[in-house]
Amino acid sequence: MAHLITVSCSLNISSRSRSYSKPSNQCSIPSSTSISLPISKSPLKKLATKTNRSQKCRTIYATAVSMGQESGSQTGSISDKTPNEAPNRKKIMVIGGDGYCGWATSLHLSNKNYEVAVVDNLVRRQFDHQLGLDSLTPISSIHNRIRRWKSLTEKEIQRYVGDICDFEFLSEAFTSFKPDAVVHFGEQRSAPYSMIDRSRAVYTQHNNVIGTLNVLFAIKEFKEDCHLVKLGTMGEYGTPNIDIEEGYLTITHNGRTDTLPYPKQASSFYHLSKVHDSHNIAFTCKAWGIRATDLNQGVVYGVRTNETAMHEELYNRFDYDGVFGTALNRFCVQAAVGHPLTVYGKGGQTRGYLDIRDTVQCVELAIANPAQRGEFRVFNQFTEQFSVNELASLVTKAGQNLGLEVQTISVPNPRVEAEEHYYNAKHTKLVELGLKPHLLSDSLLDSLLNVAVQYKDRVDLKQIMPSVSWRKIGAKPKTIAA
Amino acid sequence: MAHLITVSCSLNISSRSRSYSKPSNQCSIPSSTSISLPISKSPLKKLATKTNRSQKCRTIYATAVSMGQESGSQTGSISDKTPNEAPNRKKIMVIGGDGYCGWATSLHLSNKNYEVAVVDNLVRRQFDHQLGLDSLTPISSIHNRIRRWKSLTEKEIQRYVGDICDFEFLSEAFTSFKPDAVVHFGEQRSAPYSMIDRSRAVYTQHNNVIGTLNVLFAIKEFKEDCHLVKLGTMGEYGTPNIDIEEGYLTITHNGRTDTLPYPKQASSFYHLSKVHDSHNIAFTCKAWGIRATDLNQGVVYGVRTNETAMHEELYNRFDYDGVFGTALNRFCVQAAVGHPLTVYGKGGQTRGYLDIRDTVQCVELAIANPAQRGEFRVFNQFTEQFSVNELASLVTKAGQNLGLEVQTISVPNPRVEAEEHYYNAKHTKLVELGLKPHLLSDSLLDSLLNVAVQYKDRVDLKQIMPSVSWRKIGAKPKTIAA
Repeated sequence: MAHLITVSCSLNISSRSRSYSKPSNQCSIPSSTSISLPISKSPLKKLATKTNRSQKCRTIYATAVSMGQESGSQTGSISDKTPNEAPNRKKIMVIGGDGYCGWATSLHLSNKNYEVAVVDNLVRRQFDHQLGLDSLTPISSIHNRIRRWKSLTEKEIQRYVGDICDFEFLSEAFTSFKPDAVVHFGEQRSAPYSMIDRSRAVYTQHNNVIGTLNVLFAIKEFKEDCHLVKLGTMGEYGTPNIDIEEGYLTITHNGRTDTLPYPKQASSFYHLSKVHDSHNIAFTCKAWGIRATDLNQGVVYGVRTNETAMHEELYNRFDYDGVFGTALNRFCVQAAVGHPLTVYGKGGQTRGYLDIRDTVQCVELAIANPAQRGEFRVFNQFTEQFSVNELASLVTKAGQNLGLEVQTISVPNPRVEAEEHYYNAKHTKLVELGLKPHLLSDSLLDSLLNVAVQYKDRVDLKQIMPSVSWRKIGAKPKTIAA
Repeated sequence: MAHLITVSCSLNISSRSRSYSKPSNQCSIPSSTSISLPISKSPLKKLATKTNRSQKCRTIYATAVSMGQESGSQTGSISDKTPNEAPNRKKIMVIGGDGYCGWATSLHLSNKNYEVAVVDNLVRRQFDHQLGLDSLTPISSIHNRIRRWKSLTEKEIQRYVGDICDFEFLSEAFTSFKPDAVVHFGEQRSAPYSMIDRSRAVYTQHNNVIGTLNVLFAIKEFKEDCHLVKLGTMGEYGTPNIDIEEGYLTITHNGRTDTLPYPKQASSFYHLSKVHDSHNIAFTCKAWGIRATDLNQGVVYGVRTNETAMHEELYNRFDYDGVFGTALNRFCVQAAVGHPLTVYGKGGQTRGYLDIRDTVQCVELAIANPAQRGEFRVFNQFTEQFSVNELASLVTKAGQNLGLEVQTISVPNPRVEAEEHYYNAKHTKLVELGLKPHLLSDSLLDSLLNVAVQYKDRVDLKQIMPSVSWRKIGAKPKTIAA
């Protein structure tokens, strides 16, 4: 199903020391491009070679960077180095590197002088086509994204387009790139998507569980010291009536004490797939000495990071629909277009949230401070917790500051979840490693509402309402758009 | 891959009230056999119809029942009824009904006047072919097994040969049989098998997790009141340093209290697949109101049940090999053939054990006392706990009583597990429902050692030693016999 196409472009640039802190409106694609592909007997791979070899040298005139440029220390600092030649740069494979969190992370790590390879089967784009959805922000192809990044920064990101459930593909990617760490975002990541119908539920669990198993086997077989940084979810814990700890809980029972994995109560086939992954990974740490960090991430909001803001071809996706849109992103779009904020049920559902700029920071901290061999380390990756009602209030207030009239309605909850519950989840381990959180109060207008207002003409109102019911999911394939 | 072949034979018998408490040596297959098949456009299904229709009326002379006949109350009592005509008989679908526990359970339930359908893809037999293994006891085909059962008891067991991972097949089986309860043994059930290589690990998790998801969807779609009786394993809990409770643990933490799923620490890809199943099932109970009982079973030993002992064509399989053989069964075969008992490592590994006669009893108790709608009920299904060293001592002593010279050796532990640990697992819920345990001390000679001695000429010594290493498992397919 998936075919390995490894394209590695080497760049001839006269001066590597020029500054990129102020990207020019006119950028050039490398004038000389060499293509390297793995040896293969597959006709399809040969075809790919031929196609790529037929590419001509060319110059592309870039459009202006309209989304705001941050000439922060990160962007400025890296231009003083010659990163692609530096010895001992850590090699990071970002699986799912074309997705929402994955793309932002890939650029951030590349910017931080890691050698980055994106592994992605691009199925997330296919989901949009199939369901009739689209990102609020226009996004470029992974190929153009990577080319643009190189033209702006001289930094090269390798790409491996294929499916990690295909172990032959994954093996080639591993033995070719030889990662020091794998950041694994490469999963179907929407709870509603997993609840559309039986075939999507099965797809989600198969894709996520088997893909992760394959990654574990690839590490064991090809690069046993490689650090797995796996994206889990705070949803693995559910909403217990006791404090949520980071991965483990010390329990005294009938006079004896042990520290055990924190009990899991996930509430969608997607969230459950992450629970399964966590158990599988924990076992391989114990049995094989795998070093792994499970990042139980909260709900991510925002779209702009230092790197994606550099050029419109680097823009990240922004999902506001009922399937892939997370609560806060969706509220901001609703506020921007004058649609009432849709609170599911009573709105007391409380979760951990974080800015996407903190996602990339957390992943980098995990990589820079790897788990020990045999260690299954769990971090709760979020910065603040809010109820849905609190989010609605914050968006209402921020919207009013922009002159928007914001209303809130309660819609029947399509999910099965407690709507009023205790919630107190710990999240200190990443702060101890150096995380400096971006708080929602500071970024709501900048990174969210303004982006939503900027692109409000692209909003498709039909995508906003919940379309997937946890209770009504059927065995029959849902063949019309969700 | 799998094709639905439903064969339902209706029987014309002149007198249904004849007694079967003393099976005759000469038994007759029904003189008139009608075949009903579901309406289908599949050529293969039509072929099956044609083939079956070409069957002629015949009489088969049965061989003697050589394995011992127990004219117990069960066999005697049911012969007084006309079970196949009784109204409101509970319909039980036994998935994996051709396997070790499944076959014994199918017969037991049929004997207890339930209407039984066996669903099985027969892949367990294929594993033996591929790995060069064989049951110690000779076993008949599922077709002959079911025919023999009918000829002996007048009781009809329906069979659906196909793969529950194929939802089209499962749908047909469900809508055709309309079960009141599903007993789900239909999983790859060997820890070593799941640790042979990557492809077997992936197969095990895919087969078990997706098969169970399909069963859950079939219940929701076609028979939402159906009670799922799912075979889990005590191995889901691992070996925590605190008492193991039945499925749930009440935890007080930072001054608050909740009852949560007991933490899971499984130690093979097989055991992990059962952990995944448990989480998936628990979610569907909550979200869809599924009624489910998870039977966390210990290590099963023994081969003879009241029903399988009735005729050699009903004999159950008895695995003693390094892949499918459980510890106690293997020890008894080793004692019978003069091979030293192979204790893995220090031998302090302690687990729960039960006689297969208690497996069938427990399943029946679960069916007779179903879970409530929305309830995810967990029973620990074992009767006694032993360390491996204790088992070796018991077998040594019993062997000596039979005049066998029994030695014990320690072999390097192929697994990754604690060899000395605390273990205290609760198992009161099935006893409260009426379980009357068969204790090992009473059955060791009868049901185990004597069977091993009886069939010792069939023992293949090459199958006895452990052949699968938890640490050496590789990504490459293992193409030679394990």
